[in-house]
Amino acid sequence: MNAFRSHTCADLSAANAGETVRLAGWVHRVRDHGGVLFIDLRDHYGMTQVLCDGDSPAFKALEKVRSEWVIRIDGTVKLRDASLINSKIPTGEIEVYVRDLEVLGEAEELPLPVFGEQDYPEETRLAYRFLDLRRENLHNSMILRSNVVKSMRQRMWDQGFNEFQTPIITASSPEGARDFLVPSRLHPGKFYALPQAPQQFKQLIMVGGFDKYFQIAPCFRDEDPRADRSPTDFYQLDVEMSFVEQEDIFAVVQPVLQGVFEEFDPERQVDPNWPRIPYAESLLKYGSDKPDLRNPIEMQIVSEHFAGSGFAIFAKLLEQEGTQIRAIPAPTGGSRKFCDRMNKFAQEQGLPGMGYIFWRKAEDGALEGAGPLAKNIGPERTEAIRQQLGLGEGDAAFFLGGNPSSFEGVAGRARNVIGEELGLTDKSVHKFAWIVDFPMYEADDEGKIDFSHNPFSMPQGGIEALEGNPLDVLGYQYDLACNGYEILSGAIRNHKLETMYKAFAIAGYPASEVEKRFGGMVKAFKYGAPPHGGCAAGIDRIVMILADTANIREVIMFPMNQRAEDLMMGAPSEPMNEQLRELRLRVLPKED
Amino acid sequence: MNAFRSHTCADLSAANAGETVRLAGWVHRVRDHGGVLFIDLRDHYGMTQVLCDGDSPAFKALEKVRSEWVIRIDGTVKLRDASLINSKIPTGEIEVYVRDLEVLGEAEELPLPVFGEQDYPEETRLAYRFLDLRRENLHNSMILRSNVVKSMRQRMWDQGFNEFQTPIITASSPEGARDFLVPSRLHPGKFYALPQAPQQFKQLIMVGGFDKYFQIAPCFRDEDPRADRSPTDFYQLDVEMSFVEQEDIFAVVQPVLQGVFEEFDPERQVDPNWPRIPYAESLLKYGSDKPDLRNPIEMQIVSEHFAGSGFAIFAKLLEQEGTQIRAIPAPTGGSRKFCDRMNKFAQEQGLPGMGYIFWRKAEDGALEGAGPLAKNIGPERTEAIRQQLGLGEGDAAFFLGGNPSSFEGVAGRARNVIGEELGLTDKSVHKFAWIVDFPMYEADDEGKIDFSHNPFSMPQGGIEALEGNPLDVLGYQYDLACNGYEILSGAIRNHKLETMYKAFAIAGYPASEVEKRFGGMVKAFKYGAPPHGGCAAGIDRIVMILADTANIREVIMFPMNQRAEDLMMGAPSEPMNEQLRELRLRVLPKED
Repeated sequence: MNAFRSHTCADLSAANAGETVRLAGWVHRVRDHGGVLFIDLRDHYGMTQVLCDGDSPAFKALEKVRSEWVIRIDGTVKLRDASLINSKIPTGEIEVYVRDLEVLGEAEELPLPVFGEQDYPEETRLAYRFLDLRRENLHNSMILRSNVVKSMRQRMWDQGFNEFQTPIITASSPEGARDFLVPSRLHPGKFYALPQAPQQFKQLIMVGGFDKYFQIAPCFRDEDPRADRSPTDFYQLDVEMSFVEQEDIFAVVQPVLQGVFEEFDPERQVDPNWPRIPYAESLLKYGSDKPDLRNPIEMQIVSEHFAGSGFAIFAKLLEQEGTQIRAIPAPTGGSRKFCDRMNKFAQEQGLPGMGYIFWRKAEDGALEGAGPLAKNIGPERTEAIRQQLGLGEGDAAFFLGGNPSSFEGVAGRARNVIGEELGLTDKSVHKFAWIVDFPMYEADDEGKIDFSHNPFSMPQGGIEALEGNPLDVLGYQYDLACNGYEILSGAIRNHKLETMYKAFAIAGYPASEVEKRFGGMVKAFKYGAPPHGGCAAGIDRIVMILADTANIREVIMFPMNQRAEDLMMGAPSEPMNEQLRELRLRVLPKED
Repeated sequence: MNAFRSHTCADLSAANAGETVRLAGWVHRVRDHGGVLFIDLRDHYGMTQVLCDGDSPAFKALEKVRSEWVIRIDGTVKLRDASLINSKIPTGEIEVYVRDLEVLGEAEELPLPVFGEQDYPEETRLAYRFLDLRRENLHNSMILRSNVVKSMRQRMWDQGFNEFQTPIITASSPEGARDFLVPSRLHPGKFYALPQAPQQFKQLIMVGGFDKYFQIAPCFRDEDPRADRSPTDFYQLDVEMSFVEQEDIFAVVQPVLQGVFEEFDPERQVDPNWPRIPYAESLLKYGSDKPDLRNPIEMQIVSEHFAGSGFAIFAKLLEQEGTQIRAIPAPTGGSRKFCDRMNKFAQEQGLPGMGYIFWRKAEDGALEGAGPLAKNIGPERTEAIRQQLGLGEGDAAFFLGGNPSSFEGVAGRARNVIGEELGLTDKSVHKFAWIVDFPMYEADDEGKIDFSHNPFSMPQGGIEALEGNPLDVLGYQYDLACNGYEILSGAIRNHKLETMYKAFAIAGYPASEVEKRFGGMVKAFKYGAPPHGGCAAGIDRIVMILADTANIREVIMFPMNQRAEDLMMGAPSEPMNEQLRELRLRVLPKED
């Protein structure tokens, strides 16, 4: 027999009654019922109730046992009385009468209880992560994550992909964040960088003649802390394919992610319709490039109803170029109280406010548009708006005006809040959407043109498209939105060197700079590069959605805190002088 | 239809004759047979012969195509004449007559040919890795590695293990090599370290209540370059289990690795008998703790035959304490020429030489021990040696004397050479052996005691065993040898804090130092640690054995060169001043 157990703590059932067994695990809870000790013994697999009374030679030793001690017991499986059967756990029909006990590991007074799920300060939880991990919720989240990654891998293999590992100690591969640097001891004064993503390597794998690559890839970005993001490393499902167009990528990704969501969240449906929504349309309808389609609200342009109307603020606004009035329809939101609350929300978000109309039955029984805005524009325009938006009695609409970029973000958040508060957002389903046709370039306030997303994307229309206004150029670039989160981003790559130089030149990077920063890839494109494209999906984010948590530290085994410190291991820490000497580095004193 | 292909270059067979198809790939080879152009078109999957003559509208364009251009062709599948069928490739029955051509990516003059497998300087191969990867051997090695890792994962999952990712940017986790440091921007002056192995984390996962962990884990060691080792990062199959003894680990590992070897090297047998060989016995019999058991030679102690013998060198040696004479039997090695060559080998390895006896038929037809050594000790002792070693006519034996540690290494290498040269080593089989009972401690020349291997191992006999002579203490520590390589190392861990402090104290580390260096683990062991153990197998090494290569760069997609440089990506490189400023670091000038 194994020195520690004949069964796990989830194995025993009524069928084992009468058997002599050996179990090992953690003391989850001890109860003393007047001369009879009950212990819930817990291991990775489950829980078994063990008990002991004064007749057992183990009784005296078992009396000393405390929560979270690790013990090994030998004993006899007994059926529980019918009235004591616990149908919630697989071992609930039996208990084990203890005859022998061995303490394998004692535990000091606990800084954090494992039994129960009381809230504890996160710093304590992180400093004692090994205790926190024993708690049921976190334990289950880790298993979930492990299984999700396994399933993703299997689904990629099933579609003919190979997983390849790309270098971690390597050259800078900029993705818009800061690099983590690694000083070289063999080449003092020079530094490696940890990859922000395996972007260049996966493209080089395609140029190297492989066809379908994926990797569960660690990525490293030295970013300023944010609640929903790991401050150091995170994982992505990284994918690249040769000889493909955008739709080929979509056809690979949907079955993988839809399958994962269906497998690991059987309680929520997955809508199999993943619409393609152009970026511009997404901003217009949803105020976001990662729309939550579980929320049925779609915004509309209603400028015409306000142009020259009695609502002077909007009427004047519309005289300026590039301005618009947009409406957020809010079915069932037709109460002054709700409308005022939403108006206040917009003010909290930094706008002057959000005009509204709500529709109610007038005293004469007719449908009436109410609120100050309706008064100002009069019943005809109000009715035209109602008809355009398809609203009726008990509904409302909110209005935002100006240059869309000035209010689009608030409009999107207002749409979310309205959907939530009115119960319109369907939480029983996962809804996905491909956001396509991202613009290649954006201009800053001074009109300087830069890449708006990934500089390696192929412009739609190829090199000819780069002859016109850069701000009109769309890229073969896409995101996947799920329930209002961006969970994947990708592109068909620009594999033509001439087009690449031109695209970078527009953003102000001369060829020499491109060659300096992306030398490996530029060189590779000179020797027969295939058309290729791919994407990267955020694994932490996907597991967060499946685990229904907003805290990224609930889905990572050993996370950093938000100051990028590991409180359990004590990282980062002061180096030894000899280490710095070998690297020929000196730490400078803090500037005052 | 997909814009680039209707089939891959491995898909088409006689069944497709007459079909119009679209293919894309690299131009592997162009042959001009007087007005008819033949091109071997290559993609990830295979090769298809396409052809064109002046009747095709694509002819003029196809004439311009050169090696390694990426093209897309449309054409008609035609059966080859029976005499032209190439049975070596799946598409050998057909060829495709080209009617339309699109050049997807041109290639400049190649610095390295893809067609053929000529040897090229490694620096060129690494600088143009994307071309080298297109070559058949390297391409196949990458696919092999990918499939081996997949199979390992599947086999671990099948045994109920979960894969968990451990942190990469973390605290130092010393394993005897130097750490790679990562300066912290948020905490200037402090540094993270990349893990030399996930050792502490996997033990913390066990303390955290998980039972069976594995990970295909990247490990980072800043070691001085060596031909068979990656100078930066490498991968291991990392395993840890709770509530186990040594044999439980062996029972998990053998089916995984045996299965992988059987799956990926069907041409060689895998011996299913994996003997347990104590460390001391392994050094004695094989002169190595990673013996190649395909070689049947086992060394023996033959001191008694030389004590007081006429061979003064050995006789005198044996008067000193701690000395031994050992014999390496060499069946079929009984020629003066071979024996002299081996003697020379020992001299090249730094020994004064290696005495020998070989057995031949004397002029009178009797069996005779020949060579200077036999003369010195006389026929009786010579015959006793022969009988002990079980040798006969045509065989030889080599002799080494002194303190075993002074000659054991050479003896082991001599055993390898003898096995190879005499054809005794059976190359048709893979042979594994568990090397067990490693000593916990070793003494340096000045008698200072230190850990000989992993300080976290449990001493056999527990804390009591630490009361005696440290050099007698064995650990629950083991290696797995395969064909003369160490491919795995592991241990049952010391999970008892008191025993751990004592074990470290013997090696000269006070408790304060243990707490400083392994704070996270020490803290965890105070709160209920289960007995646990595990191992780590070297993935690069395993793939090297399966791919039958001695060069680690043949089994890594983007390897560093031996000066730890990435010649393709240009790493390491000079940082930008702003990066150093953010990290508050200065690079010191080179000392003269």
